[in-house]
Amino acid sequence: MDRTPQLVASHFGVKGDVLQLGGVAATELVERYGSPLYVYAPAVFRSKLERLRRALPDFEVHYAVKANPTPAVLDFFVQEGCDLDVATCGELSLSIAVGCPPSRIMLAGAGKTQDELLAAARAEIAEIHVESVDEIERLAKLAPELGRRIAVGLRLNPGRVDYGEEESIEAKPAGYGFDEEMLEEATRAVLAADGLELTGLHVYFGTQHLDVDLMVAAWGHVLALAERLCALADEPLRTIDFGGGLGVPYYKNESEFDVEEFGRRLAPLVARARRVPGLADANLVTEPGRYLTAEGGVYLTRVIARKHSRGQEFVVVDGGINHHLAATGNLGHVLKRNFPLALANRMGAEPSLQAEVVGRQSTALDTLARKAKLPAPEVGDIVAFFQSGAYARSSSPLQFRSQEEPAEVFAENGQARLVRKRSGETDLLRGTILDPSF
Amino acid sequence: MDRTPQLVASHFGVKGDVLQLGGVAATELVERYGSPLYVYAPAVFRSKLERLRRALPDFEVHYAVKANPTPAVLDFFVQEGCDLDVATCGELSLSIAVGCPPSRIMLAGAGKTQDELLAAARAEIAEIHVESVDEIERLAKLAPELGRRIAVGLRLNPGRVDYGEEESIEAKPAGYGFDEEMLEEATRAVLAADGLELTGLHVYFGTQHLDVDLMVAAWGHVLALAERLCALADEPLRTIDFGGGLGVPYYKNESEFDVEEFGRRLAPLVARARRVPGLADANLVTEPGRYLTAEGGVYLTRVIARKHSRGQEFVVVDGGINHHLAATGNLGHVLKRNFPLALANRMGAEPSLQAEVVGRQSTALDTLARKAKLPAPEVGDIVAFFQSGAYARSSSPLQFRSQEEPAEVFAENGQARLVRKRSGETDLLRGTILDPSF
Repeated sequence: MDRTPQLVASHFGVKGDVLQLGGVAATELVERYGSPLYVYAPAVFRSKLERLRRALPDFEVHYAVKANPTPAVLDFFVQEGCDLDVATCGELSLSIAVGCPPSRIMLAGAGKTQDELLAAARAEIAEIHVESVDEIERLAKLAPELGRRIAVGLRLNPGRVDYGEEESIEAKPAGYGFDEEMLEEATRAVLAADGLELTGLHVYFGTQHLDVDLMVAAWGHVLALAERLCALADEPLRTIDFGGGLGVPYYKNESEFDVEEFGRRLAPLVARARRVPGLADANLVTEPGRYLTAEGGVYLTRVIARKHSRGQEFVVVDGGINHHLAATGNLGHVLKRNFPLALANRMGAEPSLQAEVVGRQSTALDTLARKAKLPAPEVGDIVAFFQSGAYARSSSPLQFRSQEEPAEVFAENGQARLVRKRSGETDLLRGTILDPSF
Repeated sequence: MDRTPQLVASHFGVKGDVLQLGGVAATELVERYGSPLYVYAPAVFRSKLERLRRALPDFEVHYAVKANPTPAVLDFFVQEGCDLDVATCGELSLSIAVGCPPSRIMLAGAGKTQDELLAAARAEIAEIHVESVDEIERLAKLAPELGRRIAVGLRLNPGRVDYGEEESIEAKPAGYGFDEEMLEEATRAVLAADGLELTGLHVYFGTQHLDVDLMVAAWGHVLALAERLCALADEPLRTIDFGGGLGVPYYKNESEFDVEEFGRRLAPLVARARRVPGLADANLVTEPGRYLTAEGGVYLTRVIARKHSRGQEFVVVDGGINHHLAATGNLGHVLKRNFPLALANRMGAEPSLQAEVVGRQSTALDTLARKAKLPAPEVGDIVAFFQSGAYARSSSPLQFRSQEEPAEVFAENGQARLVRKRSGETDLLRGTILDPSF
């Protein structure tokens, strides 16, 4: 089933013929803030967060900044009581800049430089997740000047996990984390470092999982690893970070992840783990990003031209690959097909045209949707791309063909507010030195 | 054959064990300007330009800004006497900002807004390439207020062209340009518009062609179309824009495009076309971008960590997908395999390791090279990615994971100069409004 009607019904709505986002007409938003435009409905973020919290009452829900690092989005999740998980020092500075206390931030990342480790340690963030023996040694060297021990978690790349009838999550080689086969070696390395305190475990099982069986097995595996780590360290654990991984359906053949069923099946595993002394008081943490933000964001574009060329219809919109690489299928193999989309100012009209929806870049790469079924769009109509709250703006080559960067807007309770202004062409010269004097 | 030794020998060089770029050691560049770093050797741009001019003496060589819109690169080509071809209004403002006279700029683009058409017409650029009847009508409306006729070229999407034994370039549907089947209709539409003057033809045959037979057939076809257009318009043509399309070899199985052979075979076709009265004085224009800039740019990164995981070796560098989407194979299917690379501070060492070269993003997407053969790199070593002068920085999701944007440097005659400064993490907040007062 096409995901569009479902998303509109669950999260948005229609008035007259017009898509409403946070109670504001898509037409009005484009009129006021220009086009293209990223619109976020914080009510959708909140409903996803609350549903997850209800389904997983034993867990703290953090927000993984990488999914959408727009400062207003970070601010939203901080206000809602989420701690922030960051993947780089850049994300760390953003998080601090929006007012998140460092004690509510954790850092993981495959390639941390010494400068980044120092910045994180000085900021006294909650936990730094270490990914190699070399990194442990480099971090330990920083402790003396800080005059206190640095809290670290071990980041593990999990081994093979069997589940269901005869399915399994394969063990993969990775540039990040310790392979779980190295758990003992990694634990010993942290314990041997005077300046470090082993407080946590972090396991990353990949992204975009929609299968409850798989996720129960994966998180059960994390609990088993935590129990082993406790025994090795002979210390209670403060934090167990299960990563994110909760998927969001994008395409017709995908179904929503059943988070309530997941919670029910996870509960006995958690209860059993709680009886292990070292795990009794551990904070169980999940840190979704896409799951919380994808559905709350919509990318609005305007139709600039209609074309017929050699048997194909084309709808040219004023956005494109420069704003939404994922929608064009050029961000890895996970997301290849059409994002859910609609003609936002003619929601009631029946589809009467099958068309390629393309951007302005005169290259076949710049195709936002193939064979999309739409009510024959006219110049000025608004094409909305759903599921654009995560990995849209920040994952796109914003300077490709030197076009403007769209504004970002929050829409809630019938009110809209600008959270990032549109940047004009002249801004493209910022940071540029044409004739430096040296 | 691996392209690296060839590129080093033709364009760069080695002193001691260190790669030299424009006569400056890669180690020194990274020391002075930080890492990662984009380095451009203008002598390479110049040698590519001069070789092309020599091979195609009947042609004007323009620079297609989209390949690398860094202002210093535009400035370089303007100083070298190249006109600029732009694909968007953003590129137009950049071109004007670096001091290119508007009379030396032409604009084409699939989705021009009315604002863009107005800006281009007001700036009195050399020619606007129109791509639909609607666009012709929209542009014509602007002429009265300008008090002069606007020079336009017709942009055509070519039909099928046969060449060689039994090969052909297929006719493709496209969102940009007029299908050549519409040549008459398009010509009539321009002639019927009072405010427009039909001065040019522009034909785009795609990108990255390495086959001389194909290119001779393609450009021969452009000449034939020009002859037809002259006859239809009953006017001489001022400009014939053959597009770019000249390829650059990236991978082992690709050979350099033989531009001298191309020139020799093209000459009689051009001579014949010159005998057509309306084509006798036409400017024949080619507008390469990648061809001129790709080989002159190198992306330098530093090794942060080495890892072994489940039978695979990993080299983690401080750059990644956020700076070089094309190298990770995520920018369309044209470029999928490893870019030529080398360990820039140990050029003489024999390869002793086969490794995945990955960035800092903890995702398999962030793989810069697979199974790369390198002298076992140590932390601090420099990995250089060649062919990074075109579609690197501007085609990458610079804000992915909120990391810093590398500096850009020109290196020539043993001197380096900064042309764009590195942007730190705090810059990531620029343009942000957290609490707008309305």
